[in-house]
Amino acid sequence: MRQSHLFTKTLRDAPKGEDAVNAKLLIRGGYIHKTMAGAYAYLPLGLRVIQKISNIVREEMNAIGGQELLMTALQPKTVWDETGRWDEEVMYRLQDAHGGETGLGFSHEEALTDAVRAHVQSYKQLPFYAYQIQTKFRNEARAKSGILRGREFLMKDLYSFHTNEDDLNAYYDTVADAYRTVFERCGFETVYYTEASGGSMSHLPSHEFQVPIEAGEDTVLACDACLYAYNEEVWAEKSVSEGLSCPECGKAELKQVTTSEVGNIFRQLLKYSEPMKALFASEEGGDKPIVMGAYGLGISRLMGIAVEDSHDEDGIIWNEALAPFRVHLIALADKEGVVAEKADNLYEALQQAGIEVLYDDRDARPGEKLADADLLGMPIRVVVGSRSLEQGGVEVKRRSEVEGLVVSLDQVVAQLS
Amino acid sequence: MRQSHLFTKTLRDAPKGEDAVNAKLLIRGGYIHKTMAGAYAYLPLGLRVIQKISNIVREEMNAIGGQELLMTALQPKTVWDETGRWDEEVMYRLQDAHGGETGLGFSHEEALTDAVRAHVQSYKQLPFYAYQIQTKFRNEARAKSGILRGREFLMKDLYSFHTNEDDLNAYYDTVADAYRTVFERCGFETVYYTEASGGSMSHLPSHEFQVPIEAGEDTVLACDACLYAYNEEVWAEKSVSEGLSCPECGKAELKQVTTSEVGNIFRQLLKYSEPMKALFASEEGGDKPIVMGAYGLGISRLMGIAVEDSHDEDGIIWNEALAPFRVHLIALADKEGVVAEKADNLYEALQQAGIEVLYDDRDARPGEKLADADLLGMPIRVVVGSRSLEQGGVEVKRRSEVEGLVVSLDQVVAQLS
Repeated sequence: MRQSHLFTKTLRDAPKGEDAVNAKLLIRGGYIHKTMAGAYAYLPLGLRVIQKISNIVREEMNAIGGQELLMTALQPKTVWDETGRWDEEVMYRLQDAHGGETGLGFSHEEALTDAVRAHVQSYKQLPFYAYQIQTKFRNEARAKSGILRGREFLMKDLYSFHTNEDDLNAYYDTVADAYRTVFERCGFETVYYTEASGGSMSHLPSHEFQVPIEAGEDTVLACDACLYAYNEEVWAEKSVSEGLSCPECGKAELKQVTTSEVGNIFRQLLKYSEPMKALFASEEGGDKPIVMGAYGLGISRLMGIAVEDSHDEDGIIWNEALAPFRVHLIALADKEGVVAEKADNLYEALQQAGIEVLYDDRDARPGEKLADADLLGMPIRVVVGSRSLEQGGVEVKRRSEVEGLVVSLDQVVAQLS
Repeated sequence: MRQSHLFTKTLRDAPKGEDAVNAKLLIRGGYIHKTMAGAYAYLPLGLRVIQKISNIVREEMNAIGGQELLMTALQPKTVWDETGRWDEEVMYRLQDAHGGETGLGFSHEEALTDAVRAHVQSYKQLPFYAYQIQTKFRNEARAKSGILRGREFLMKDLYSFHTNEDDLNAYYDTVADAYRTVFERCGFETVYYTEASGGSMSHLPSHEFQVPIEAGEDTVLACDACLYAYNEEVWAEKSVSEGLSCPECGKAELKQVTTSEVGNIFRQLLKYSEPMKALFASEEGGDKPIVMGAYGLGISRLMGIAVEDSHDEDGIIWNEALAPFRVHLIALADKEGVVAEKADNLYEALQQAGIEVLYDDRDARPGEKLADADLLGMPIRVVVGSRSLEQGGVEVKRRSEVEGLVVSLDQVVAQLS
């Protein structure tokens, strides 16, 4: 993509009152635009990151048998009344023109269970797994932390449906492994598998996936040997404290870590199926409620955590899996037009080699272009200028490193492929 | 996909009060689930259709320089106050926990113009084109026509930004051509380019893309030679009536046709940029308001119109571009298990050849399987049964035709490739 065609540009300042690093850098880079407190539009560069995360998540959910669907945000009060969740504080409520009471879904257990009871009647149809990548709404009293905790955000939510608890437990572990794969592919080095309360309706714990982040909102007791951890809810119950040998592996001591949650998984058992009468005819005869699990992963939240996890004072440092473009090609203007011609040719050659390139072909000062490149944070910067051409090539530098290398023009495509 | 794994099944009845053919067939086929009046969830088969339409639209929007982004549904009252549109009837209004008045966007001119004025200041940044595929909300007094006119629906909305009206006019024609390509790729034989009013703020007409549909909600005066048409708003103003020679081409007489609208394009000119002060520094010097166009295309609506356009009393007849699967492979059970083995092998072979197959491997009666195949409407049905195997192969039949052919097992993959 030619940067001269991109309608967004970098901004000197983030809006007042925006404290989170993720929102500051993403707004200044033109990745997102703040519509209102807690709601951010994804501009072209930002949507590319969202799409990369979504594709990774989709691939891993399909790999564990997930069937993708898309539920509605609008949901009638009646279905939430069945489980008693209509009155939850975060529900946005609105009045329909036809008089019915309607909410905006902050979760989709009720809506999906309603579809499932219309379609599933027999043990022969179980187990199955359904997920969506969908926009959720939460009427937060105070939106904060940029895109980490908004009023409108993108989630992947997977739900599993089983005849019995053993089958659910096996799939629960399968999902946990798939999540580990997702986070590894997204470039996170350390993700703690964190025990949390299962809630009032489940005798089994739930788990959170927690990433160490300096400005994180959670504190966990974590083992760096096996990456198991405990969230604050369970410290007393489990009698764990800092310095204790890890109860899971015994190979390291638990330590307090500040983290941000990037996903969570729950065994909801009969919490929804029992009150909603989502029943199946069992193999032994007789109707039973379906055993359920629910697995959340914040798509837009993950983007924010990636920025919190990887940046410096100059801007974002994307890893290759999430970067909107792998290469930022920068032409530093010269009077003779030699640089522009060489850079144009290189842009064509890189594209033909299947490399995603953002090409800064703008009529702007070198200092501005290099500062913008640091702010935008593509993994590899390629600078074409009179000086590098005199040295026999172009400067190739990783965003994460200080020093670049001069690579000859005829080798740069091969080297980046 | 093995049909035994698909959690949805066909239903005998659509919900009471659902009059539209599209909703009846899509609900009975398990493509969609009605959450409430005017809101439908897209179940796995339905989402596959939505994704096929979205991909076609995305390709054609990218081809005309569209930059994809994703705006928020939540929008503050303040931005709608700038254009005076906060009080439009179809706006869903909700109370935020933090006290602000917030609406759910039924359109995104205001929201995008707000982002544009933060990023665009100079004629050098114009023209540009931005689009999204996003969920829209309309507080309709009476939801009707199934997924053709819902309270929540998927739209592609493209917006263009120009320095002057001539540039807008040229791009307007480019978009019209791209729309024609989209509808042709989606399998519509006739789409009328229909003149409509430009609204109070524009001296230029707008255009609708209208498909002839028996149960359509519009009536146009159309020319079957050049496919130009006039909607009811402009009949008096343009002095057109049935039987009149087409004012555009003169090659045929205008006739009344019942239609459904599948897209529309507008030249909004300064309607949004002037009150919202989205200005650019012009080449001649001095600030001017940006000249805008807006181009809508209903993604979920198009799916509904495709069903209205192509079905019979037994079910849907998908064309190949939109069908969730190209081939419906059906194994008719035999006692010896020979059929199941041959069908399993054929399923593998078809997948390896890159053909999208829904494989009915369920333990069900032949009559039920064949009726389900007709209801679901994949373009090609391949039946493996003892009778066809005795005749030396499998029965291959198009959904749109009455008679099938027996094709030998070793030739069927090649023939379908």
